[in-house]
Amino acid sequence: MAGSKFAYVKNFELPDPLLPGTFIIIRLDGHAFHRFSDVHSFQKPNDERALMLMDRAARAIMEEYKDAVLAFGESDEYSFLLRRSTSLYNRRHAKILTTLTSLFTARYLYHWSDFFPNTPLQYPPTFDGRIVLYPSEKEVRDYFAWRQADTHINNLYNTAFWSLVQQGGQSTKEAHETLRGTISSQKHELLFSRFGINYGTLSERFRKGSVLIREQDNAGTRVLEKAAKKTKAASPIILCHCDIITAEFWSIRPYLLEH
Amino acid sequence: MAGSKFAYVKNFELPDPLLPGTFIIIRLDGHAFHRFSDVHSFQKPNDERALMLMDRAARAIMEEYKDAVLAFGESDEYSFLLRRSTSLYNRRHAKILTTLTSLFTARYLYHWSDFFPNTPLQYPPTFDGRIVLYPSEKEVRDYFAWRQADTHINNLYNTAFWSLVQQGGQSTKEAHETLRGTISSQKHELLFSRFGINYGTLSERFRKGSVLIREQDNAGTRVLEKAAKKTKAASPIILCHCDIITAEFWSIRPYLLEH
Amino acid sequence: MAGSKFAYVKNFELPDPLLPGTFIIIRLDGHAFHRFSDVHSFQKPNDERALMLMDRAARAIMEEYKDAVLAFGESDEYSFLLRRSTSLYNRRHAKILTTLTSLFTARYLYHWSDFFPNTPLQYPPTFDGRIVLYPSEKEVRDYFAWRQADTHINNLYNTAFWSLVQQGGQSTKEAHETLRGTISSQKHELLFSRFGINYGTLSERFRKGSVLIREQDNAGTRVLEKAAKKTKAASPIILCHCDIITAEFWSIRPYLLEH
Amino acid sequence: MAGSKFAYVKNFELPDPLLPGTFIIIRLDGHAFHRFSDVHSFQKPNDERALMLMDRAARAIMEEYKDAVLAFGESDEYSFLLRRSTSLYNRRHAKILTTLTSLFTARYLYHWSDFFPNTPLQYPPTFDGRIVLYPSEKEVRDYFAWRQADTHINNLYNTAFWSLVQQGGQSTKEAHETLRGTISSQKHELLFSRFGINYGTLSERFRKGSVLIREQDNAGTRVLEKAAKKTKAASPIILCHCDIITAEFWSIRPYLLEH
Repeated sequence: MAGSKFAYVKNFELPDPLLPGTFIIIRLDGHAFHRFSDVHSFQKPNDERALMLMDRAARAIMEEYKDAVLAFGESDEYSFLLRRSTSLYNRRHAKILTTLTSLFTARYLYHWSDFFPNTPLQYPPTFDGRIVLYPSEKEVRDYFAWRQADTHINNLYNTAFWSLVQQGGQSTKEAHETLRGTISSQKHELLFSRFGINYGTLSERFRKGSVLIREQDNAGTRVLEKAAKKTKAASPIILCHCDIITAEFWSIRPYLLEH
Repeated sequence: MAGSKFAYVKNFELPDPLLPGTFIIIRLDGHAFHRFSDVHSFQKPNDERALMLMDRAARAIMEEYKDAVLAFGESDEYSFLLRRSTSLYNRRHAKILTTLTSLFTARYLYHWSDFFPNTPLQYPPTFDGRIVLYPSEKEVRDYFAWRQADTHINNLYNTAFWSLVQQGGQSTKEAHETLRGTISSQKHELLFSRFGINYGTLSERFRKGSVLIREQDNAGTRVLEKAAKKTKAASPIILCHCDIITAEFWSIRPYLLEH
Repeated sequence: MAGSKFAYVKNFELPDPLLPGTFIIIRLDGHAFHRFSDVHSFQKPNDERALMLMDRAARAIMEEYKDAVLAFGESDEYSFLLRRSTSLYNRRHAKILTTLTSLFTARYLYHWSDFFPNTPLQYPPTFDGRIVLYPSEKEVRDYFAWRQADTHINNLYNTAFWSLVQQGGQSTKEAHETLRGTISSQKHELLFSRFGINYGTLSERFRKGSVLIREQDNAGTRVLEKAAKKTKAASPIILCHCDIITAEFWSIRPYLLEH
Repeated sequence: MAGSKFAYVKNFELPDPLLPGTFIIIRLDGHAFHRFSDVHSFQKPNDERALMLMDRAARAIMEEYKDAVLAFGESDEYSFLLRRSTSLYNRRHAKILTTLTSLFTARYLYHWSDFFPNTPLQYPPTFDGRIVLYPSEKEVRDYFAWRQADTHINNLYNTAFWSLVQQGGQSTKEAHETLRGTISSQKHELLFSRFGINYGTLSERFRKGSVLIREQDNAGTRVLEKAAKKTKAASPIILCHCDIITAEFWSIRPYLLEH
């Protein structure tokens, strides 16, 4: 065959299996989204349309890959948990990583006009991705706690920051200086006393990020899912903006970390 | 800080630098494109619009990443060569691989309607990717020769196959049986005698695939680029459908394999 | 500095950290020990001196590396378990693997004459090594069960085989044929009926291999260790030839799998 | 079979092939040799017996592995070059690395008494090892140049240092201070003016390290090897203490970097 004398180059493709028995987490991040959000006039500190679009793209991954059992998103990033026992693509590193990154990117563009009907895309956004392996349940729980704690910290800061700028008339530089060194309670106080904002009443989507859960027929989950199921009866994927740091989230959904 | 007790999970992110001094080739492949091309009624054996769209997405990668000096595409796959000396993203494996895969995917969707103005996307297409390292120039040349030889073999087969089906009235099963065991010259003969097709006169895009070259100010390349430059004067990326198996392609463009 | 223009070659040394939070098992195997055991006239099917020498070399590793908490040896192989939380050599793969392989090799030679006082080394024996990571306790227990089950299977076969050869007058080829397809109970029966050997009374070292345990001050281990401690009071490493497949071995020594 | 329910643990052994077409360099280093050399009263700044023992162990690797074509040693380290095309152990990383480390260690112990007949080993020395891949000939030449430049720098310093201590009556601390900040020519001058030592006349083994070359039937090597061959006619491995930084070393032995 004509190609056979060149086919030896295929031997340079090395195997890249992920260690069996480990939880696989894939985290996707928007590439240069600071600029992207400016060009497309995202609202500050949070653009609900943009967050809902992220959720929509993430849902597509959950629907396509049955071993993706949990996802968490905030801002321009999303993390996905694959079952410890998954044999998706024989656990090949590059195959899993690129396929999910591509699917997320594709869905983000495909659904753009559903969430931004009056904002034409000036240029297409992109995402990068990475895979991290975790050996035990504790580390998986702490990973998601890490991301949700990050959401809280960032959102409190950003809410205070943009209040100072948008309502307080400060420049962005001044706003950063106002906030420098403040602790959490001081930002709450500032929001309330100067802008009448009770942080705890802001949208949970902004304060806690988005959680996508693959529903399972456990006694424990039944209750929680009823509300969600009413609007999206056929889908086993539910979206919530709940606390995933507390032990209870995990204890009532043991199937997330089994197998 | 609230998140600090969880931040240890970041230590599970392992470094993944690619070996310095090696050529980096990234190959992207359409995911389940058999179905995608059916749903979107691609013409058989080749759909020029789809190939031009692939070229457009590939061009975006060449424009974005100056160290991508050469690319080759056929059907639903595209390969990119990064300079041996590139320090793109500090040669981090996952970062390079996912960013390019995402950019290609995003551009494919973004430009879809430019090439398929009357064919709405039924669902978004996706791509997977892999990185292969090559230590020497010879292997890089042979890699591209391997892909172009593959293009030739596949296209000759597909051209004969679809002629039998579309013009010869055979079922797809019959067509495969007709072609089973035939060598190259027999397929040429079959095309000519039964369907009046002189294979050598078919579009070079179909027979040789697409080659994207980062133009450089070498005496050797000047001549070749003049025609291309007329239509796209500002771009240093030229597209051709030329032979990349012969030594001459490389000898007149030494800069492709330098550094 | 004279060397500085060449120092860039150091950049080709890539990082190789082992995934945190996983159990590290290092298995060493004698290289071409069939020949080595022939040249040095090892007794068949087991040479107690050779096994004790293996145990001695393994003990040196346990003494040198506090995070090595368990080891299992049979024939010419030995496996070592490093604590899940070990930060030995910053968990660098090659550093851990080569240092332990070298230490075992060095100790095997150094103590050779203690166990083979009348057998000069004809040439030095060597070992190869590999590291395998296990995410969970179950897999670690199963790994050691796998090796001990292997010990049993091999030793039963070899005992029957060499009985046929040494006492039964069969050639090695005949002995293999006699045993082909026999199950465990048939080998027991053959040993007893033809050679008067009650397999269950043979040395536990031969039947169960060698287990080295890093002793710890747990209520559960106290009892077991008393006997061992009488002869080797100062050492926290105890040697036994006990069953490590049953759950009890692990349940009374929870510290082996903690951290 | 008894072992079969546990055999799944073998799936955790991941493939580790080294990239084809690259030069493989294995560097072995003495582990804690500062202490080892003190305990065994090595002469300072160089102990010829110890260096010859290193050469002997290295020779064993060259004799055992035909694809080891070059080695360079200094102090307690040795580097080995495997042919770019080697398929030794199917280029498995851990297998190559541990086997060579073990063989070197074993040979060092085995031949100890040949070089230190009156110095019993107090404890066995060990070595660690690493593999570094190099894509091109230039990098391999520069790697060996790097090590030989290092030899020169270290030996000049150590020679001056120990002269100050042994003949100059300085403490080790004083000697370090005397030498702090001095450049090469100043150390030469110090050696000559204070101790009458013409550095250039010292043993080449000390100044240039040890080079082991796999001899090949090239016109270029014939001459050089004649002297060496007289004493060791049967061996294709020659030892010299020559300059490997200059281009000439490589140009007259093209076979070292071919294939």
